[in-house]
Amino acid sequence: MSEYDTPYCNASGHWTVATRLRVRFYETDQMGVVHHSVYIRWFEEGRSAFTRALGYPYSRMESEGLSLAVTEVQARYYHPARYDEEVAVICSLEEFQSRGLTFSYEVRRAADETLLVTGRTKHISVDHQGRVMRIPDAVRCGLLAGAAGHE
Amino acid sequence: MSEYDTPYCNASGHWTVATRLRVRFYETDQMGVVHHSVYIRWFEEGRSAFTRALGYPYSRMESEGLSLAVTEVQARYYHPARYDEEVAVICSLEEFQSRGLTFSYEVRRAADETLLVTGRTKHISVDHQGRVMRIPDAVRCGLLAGAAGHE
Amino acid sequence: MSEYDTPYCNASGHWTVATRLRVRFYETDQMGVVHHSVYIRWFEEGRSAFTRALGYPYSRMESEGLSLAVTEVQARYYHPARYDEEVAVICSLEEFQSRGLTFSYEVRRAADETLLVTGRTKHISVDHQGRVMRIPDAVRCGLLAGAAGHE
Amino acid sequence: MSEYDTPYCNASGHWTVATRLRVRFYETDQMGVVHHSVYIRWFEEGRSAFTRALGYPYSRMESEGLSLAVTEVQARYYHPARYDEEVAVICSLEEFQSRGLTFSYEVRRAADETLLVTGRTKHISVDHQGRVMRIPDAVRCGLLAGAAGHE
Repeated sequence: MSEYDTPYCNASGHWTVATRLRVRFYETDQMGVVHHSVYIRWFEEGRSAFTRALGYPYSRMESEGLSLAVTEVQARYYHPARYDEEVAVICSLEEFQSRGLTFSYEVRRAADETLLVTGRTKHISVDHQGRVMRIPDAVRCGLLAGAAGHE
Repeated sequence: MSEYDTPYCNASGHWTVATRLRVRFYETDQMGVVHHSVYIRWFEEGRSAFTRALGYPYSRMESEGLSLAVTEVQARYYHPARYDEEVAVICSLEEFQSRGLTFSYEVRRAADETLLVTGRTKHISVDHQGRVMRIPDAVRCGLLAGAAGHE
Repeated sequence: MSEYDTPYCNASGHWTVATRLRVRFYETDQMGVVHHSVYIRWFEEGRSAFTRALGYPYSRMESEGLSLAVTEVQARYYHPARYDEEVAVICSLEEFQSRGLTFSYEVRRAADETLLVTGRTKHISVDHQGRVMRIPDAVRCGLLAGAAGHE
Repeated sequence: MSEYDTPYCNASGHWTVATRLRVRFYETDQMGVVHHSVYIRWFEEGRSAFTRALGYPYSRMESEGLSLAVTEVQARYYHPARYDEEVAVICSLEEFQSRGLTFSYEVRRAADETLLVTGRTKHISVDHQGRVMRIPDAVRCGLLAGAAGHE
């Protein structure tokens, strides 16, 4: 794992950003561990951190009229996270197509890098009326230029 | 407590609607009971049920450009709710002003009517740009007429 | 789709229960539709309804020391759900193994049965210390007997 | 506002800790701003940061058998927070009684310190069976010593 919130190219050749969070109490359930739906939300936090680190934050895409709607989610759960632990959410851009993106994720316990959860999400690019649209070149170049700056 | 999802006038003379829900697993936390923030969400479910029962659903207000933004929340916690229990959320319209509303709430365990939580929320009427606006007469009359139909 | 909260055998020969819920306001996000993580929670509501309808509620398993930990989640998103719509969550028991279960899901708009989301979850049976355990015969028989009563 | 995650004594003479978070996309609702229930969860994040900064993390209390159950919540909403903004959650310990605590909160936009939300929560000290108990001296002294170290 590399420095937090700084893009790097992972072993599969994909731009990757690791971000860190501390497990919140309200994210636990009565099994005493983090509820499985919460990791899907952490994936989203990972994507936000990814786009921010590459210099084209998702909030900017949204304000420019572009949303990346989720079309598919997958997650595998190996070990649970617990309240107050620090975890790393590591997000890689696996594929960049004309109208969509695929991200993959690892969630690791920060203290010892134990792998907790892996996942993947697919997205299509839609405008604010929900119509599929090409990802604008500005976004594509913004992200790639941001990545390039860290090579 | 009266029939569910049917308006009635409570002992304080306020229009009231009780709705029912079953506690979801993901609403619990590691203390083994429902997380305290969840009741605030149940209050909202109670308000939705209230407006629906009175014939002017909040979803209709929203689609007509009116939001009831929350300006104040209070809650007192007496007993916890637990996974899979049925609870009643009883919502009363305490005050109806030109630009705002006040609702009060009781959450009771459905099985034995034990009082779990009480609360109150205040709202102002805003348009979709967030500007304060008078509550339209159509909404006012819609709610009052809906109530009147159950007198 | 069959009657709500009543087990039936679907076209693939799996016991199935459809339950119904109304979309809550707090389940929406700033795209104006239900957040994608929420469907994972609805799958859980579907499982709860499934076990309840078959006569062996998950709350009873939990109180008897058995948890069905999630090991895998998949979801595909076709159309978004919106605030105040009624949706059906249709949960089928795809596989029943000695230490695990697989459920599949459809989420449909109740008004017109439009398919919104499909999914699948895998679970292992663990005790309250998190150790994998055989699913007790009482649970297995309870669920099967419950199903049999509806054949 | 002082340095983040470092205890200081505020103008009313109460130990205070400010922590920072970035608004997550899933915390927004279809009004385009953070849902009002989310601030109650941020208060909790503020309390976690408070106890951590003072050297006696809430996770340690929990593992030692002490929970601080919420008995009362109040919040006033002035301005909404938006996705991707940084906010400061400023948590002060207002009262420390033998069996309970009162915290107050301010949520401010980090960029310009605009006051977004204020609040207060009351807590009683309970054991894991839910019985009210005296706050152990170890906790009291741990928190006070932690504070003293920053005078």
